[in-house]
Amino acid sequence: MIKRWEKIRTEYLGDFRIFRIRADSSRSPRTGNVHRFFVLESPDWVNVIPLTPEGNVVMIRQYRHGTEEVTLEVPGGMVDAGDGDPSVSAARELREETGYEAEEIIHLGSVAPNPAFLNNRCHSYLVRRARRAHAVQLDGAEDITFEEIPLAEIPGLIRDGAITHSLTIAAFYYLELAGIA
Amino acid sequence: MIKRWEKIRTEYLGDFRIFRIRADSSRSPRTGNVHRFFVLESPDWVNVIPLTPEGNVVMIRQYRHGTEEVTLEVPGGMVDAGDGDPSVSAARELREETGYEAEEIIHLGSVAPNPAFLNNRCHSYLVRRARRAHAVQLDGAEDITFEEIPLAEIPGLIRDGAITHSLTIAAFYYLELAGIA
Repeated sequence: MIKRWEKIRTEYLGDFRIFRIRADSSRSPRTGNVHRFFVLESPDWVNVIPLTPEGNVVMIRQYRHGTEEVTLEVPGGMVDAGDGDPSVSAARELREETGYEAEEIIHLGSVAPNPAFLNNRCHSYLVRRARRAHAVQLDGAEDITFEEIPLAEIPGLIRDGAITHSLTIAAFYYLELAGIA
Repeated sequence: MIKRWEKIRTEYLGDFRIFRIRADSSRSPRTGNVHRFFVLESPDWVNVIPLTPEGNVVMIRQYRHGTEEVTLEVPGGMVDAGDGDPSVSAARELREETGYEAEEIIHLGSVAPNPAFLNNRCHSYLVRRARRAHAVQLDGAEDITFEEIPLAEIPGLIRDGAITHSLTIAAFYYLELAGIA
């Protein structure tokens, strides 16, 4: 039976806008020894599979500064503290990044992006009857295009490595497991 | 057509053992303005679905210091620079964390854990005919138990939120898409 570790001390090490870093010193219930672990504190994230009446997914392409590559992903972003529910953040990110409106939004599942060192969750949603209704609103640090891709092609794009973002892949697996597309 | 951003400057901000943080200042091809992005440099990660001859997956439970919860995951860890191929790292993590031996190891797919701010990949593997052959070798900072769970029960555990680690979920989706279990 795995037990919790007792946290002895927390030290904040830096604030990097999208996350804060702290070091927790915690005691192992197995050995009694204290070890130091780095934790990134981040707001929760959201992503959304926008499905059109024609059975297409609205996907986005953007340059990603972590991998220094252009990626193919579903829309998403960070939960704003003022959003109330993460579904509000997901609908907002969809609107800002693609101009599509979320008439009906359904929670599919929530992952821990990396429980080893990230403290947050990423919530995945399905939007049914997604429709283009607004102009795209990109901030200065964004450069995003969107395109519609038939949902039936998504598994092949994941298998062949054209979609690699772990959180986008988790969202599509939740959709498949929910059986509601 | 999305273009690469031109990197103007890189500044290293800190070394946190499991990752280094840098800030890249890059010029937007859309606006011409320079923005600053935080990037975590990390070695690649691996995880492995160990499948026994009886059709069970060897899963592990451990306390995770990011989410401060006990998680249910597949074995995995970091690629050591000296491992050569990530499959070697995956077989080693499987052996250390569970004592199971990887007689046959097959690459399933590789995700970008978070292309927005992580520079690395996580490589997922399937081990077929996994067999208990060694004692577990935990380091002082680990406290891990393992158990066998029928592969057929995994989709339900993901759907119901008992398995939440995004990289474990991606590995199982790759396995399903490969159709080779």
